[in-house]
Amino acid sequence: MPINTNASPRPSTTDGRIRATYWVETPFPLEAAVAVLAGEQSCGTFARLPGETDQLREAAGAVVERITPLDMADSPSLPIRPLPSKLGANPTFQRAEIEVSWPFDNLGASLPNLLATVAGNLFELREISGLRLLDLQLPPSFAQRYQGPQFGIQGTRKLLGIEGRPLIGTIIKPSVGLNPKETAALVKQLVDAGIDFIKDDELQANGPHSPLRARVDAIMPVLKEHEQRTGRKVMYAFNITDELDVMLQNHDYVQAAGGNCIMVTVAAVGLPALVWLRKHSQLAIHGHRAGWGMLSRSPYIGMDYRAYQQFWRLAGVDHLHVNGLRNKFSEDDASVIRSAQACVRPMFDAPTPGCEVMPVFSSGQTAEQVADTYKALGSTDLIYCCGGGIMAHPGGVPGGVLSLREAWEAAVQGADLDTYAQSHPALAQAIAAFRA
Amino acid sequence: MPINTNASPRPSTTDGRIRATYWVETPFPLEAAVAVLAGEQSCGTFARLPGETDQLREAAGAVVERITPLDMADSPSLPIRPLPSKLGANPTFQRAEIEVSWPFDNLGASLPNLLATVAGNLFELREISGLRLLDLQLPPSFAQRYQGPQFGIQGTRKLLGIEGRPLIGTIIKPSVGLNPKETAALVKQLVDAGIDFIKDDELQANGPHSPLRARVDAIMPVLKEHEQRTGRKVMYAFNITDELDVMLQNHDYVQAAGGNCIMVTVAAVGLPALVWLRKHSQLAIHGHRAGWGMLSRSPYIGMDYRAYQQFWRLAGVDHLHVNGLRNKFSEDDASVIRSAQACVRPMFDAPTPGCEVMPVFSSGQTAEQVADTYKALGSTDLIYCCGGGIMAHPGGVPGGVLSLREAWEAAVQGADLDTYAQSHPALAQAIAAFRA
Repeated sequence: MPINTNASPRPSTTDGRIRATYWVETPFPLEAAVAVLAGEQSCGTFARLPGETDQLREAAGAVVERITPLDMADSPSLPIRPLPSKLGANPTFQRAEIEVSWPFDNLGASLPNLLATVAGNLFELREISGLRLLDLQLPPSFAQRYQGPQFGIQGTRKLLGIEGRPLIGTIIKPSVGLNPKETAALVKQLVDAGIDFIKDDELQANGPHSPLRARVDAIMPVLKEHEQRTGRKVMYAFNITDELDVMLQNHDYVQAAGGNCIMVTVAAVGLPALVWLRKHSQLAIHGHRAGWGMLSRSPYIGMDYRAYQQFWRLAGVDHLHVNGLRNKFSEDDASVIRSAQACVRPMFDAPTPGCEVMPVFSSGQTAEQVADTYKALGSTDLIYCCGGGIMAHPGGVPGGVLSLREAWEAAVQGADLDTYAQSHPALAQAIAAFRA
Repeated sequence: MPINTNASPRPSTTDGRIRATYWVETPFPLEAAVAVLAGEQSCGTFARLPGETDQLREAAGAVVERITPLDMADSPSLPIRPLPSKLGANPTFQRAEIEVSWPFDNLGASLPNLLATVAGNLFELREISGLRLLDLQLPPSFAQRYQGPQFGIQGTRKLLGIEGRPLIGTIIKPSVGLNPKETAALVKQLVDAGIDFIKDDELQANGPHSPLRARVDAIMPVLKEHEQRTGRKVMYAFNITDELDVMLQNHDYVQAAGGNCIMVTVAAVGLPALVWLRKHSQLAIHGHRAGWGMLSRSPYIGMDYRAYQQFWRLAGVDHLHVNGLRNKFSEDDASVIRSAQACVRPMFDAPTPGCEVMPVFSSGQTAEQVADTYKALGSTDLIYCCGGGIMAHPGGVPGGVLSLREAWEAAVQGADLDTYAQSHPALAQAIAAFRA
């Protein structure tokens, strides 16, 4: 296995507490800085107050469960205030991994309040010069309040009748600018070529140039005709990201038209709107992570995907984006694989549902990354989306889709890609066109 | 004026386009990198596709309106992929401020889709080694769809009958751990001391230890009795942050009990839930910005408050947190003042409502920062919240509240704080206790 992913199962907590791990950096004595962090996110202020008894601290205070010192840095990773002179002329910046826990009674099973607790003011603390939320561990009571994915991996497969291979998917490209009729014409090409899954771009939601309902009206007849003719269902994720009432109405519109999937950009709609949509939804919910770069791009601030994805899974997405190997963005391959593994890691111990969701590979994907993706995951439980990898294939859309099917066949059979390509011309064309 | 804030009015766009300014850093030729960014956030993918005609690019492409080169860096501010050899052995990293515009037809007047467009995948681009969304300029059509603040500054003042000075406020501390009865006892002390505004902590929402409704039941009689006895209304911001149905029900509960304000942590509830709450709300909405540090703490990734606050104002908050001068966090004073000024800068040209909201100063505030706050803002249109600054005052809660009133009197009169304190013992005590 070329990719070291450090994946470890983290079942739910059994003591009712909420646990979070962080990477932290501080010029102050480590234990004191971590205590400030725990205080800020529970009962503390800058002075010990009359009402803050030992008993209250015991009941409501966050507990520092573990401090594991890591390396030191010579300079602060994030801007900090001028340091007190007691730290000396050349202070060092200690890094550590820490675990903090909260009593359930502070917040209850509430995702928005969980977010405000584990990812609230603490990033602004002057005592720290770097902070990332790495992971979360929740008590099963969260799964009692929240529904989690309705379809997940098995439900999505069942909707389409596809087993033993990934869903081969694509994104409507150009991202935005095609009108509904042009989009439907492209959908026709894609379904004729044997695609399993199509999604709107995250930039294409409900703008005047291509209103959602006009898109549904143009696309659904194509999908229905295809199904009647071939018996094959295709999943189309209509991007209904919008205000709440419009999202619910557009969900109903997609459903009434015979659609099977809606898409939302999760950070754009937020937790309560997604939870509300999930309660209402009869369709698979495809979760796009646009905006994720703001939280992930710096190693010194933000949130790891291991923590991030738990919020959206519990809120109810069925699919969640994880980028792809050798993508067009800045994320490295190990991180992509860790994210995909996180999506299928149970959030709760059985018999509580694990909330596993289908990871969506996307961004600069072609037949070229298939073998490594399968090798790293050891699973075909994913949606493999290619934009240019299908549409810019020398054989056009049919060649693009076929090359991906063939690449996955080769991977699952353990065959060498280039050898397999000798008897599979679409795959050979893909390799010739896309190999860097 | 000691604080240089670079505030400049940015009225709404008049050509219907959506504009955003960014700080960007790249090792690649600047114009090419910026073109990738504009392409990624409009019609582009990694290859020019069959459907992507010149006409489509013209209609749907984002336009780079301005590139202003700034300084160069010797190393990348954010992790990047290994660079191509054509950039040489020692590439430099050019920084710039850029302005990008989008056609309205790409997305329409939709806040969630605006967020996915101006703050979506672009942060992950391999072509950039730093990116911050600095500011936004929207066409008036956004104000036609969204209601903006219901009360804002004047409406909040009118609810309380307070003119010519800030609302003196406090946060219930300890942040979490007091039960409803203990909270109400503290509220009684605060209102007797003459406080104008009280808020729940952002960590205190609806947990089992202090359920929202039990808090309302315990606190509202105290506020009502106070009003009947003194004729003075106090504003209490009940933290109703939660799932959507619970938020609406708890809004109604607060209203039925005679309350005048609810609080939400804006990033925890997200845009559509806040917009939905605003449609329903009869009460002032107090917006907490917990989690803001994730977007603001690094100079190289994230979002400036100038852009951030526009989303929440348009969605409908009446008050929004801006931190405070010499706060307990890491933000510097100039940034705090810029944020407060942003809250009262009209988002739209008259006669479209400007969506001005009341900035909330908070975090380590005492009588000591009042003069500088007033000097920098030249206005009393704010809520000035102190936790320890009231509760840790040597004269107790009454001394704390009085010291803040006196400090603001001195500031508005242009009197020297220490001189004024000679005839105002509570203020003198505050100075003695809190001066660093």
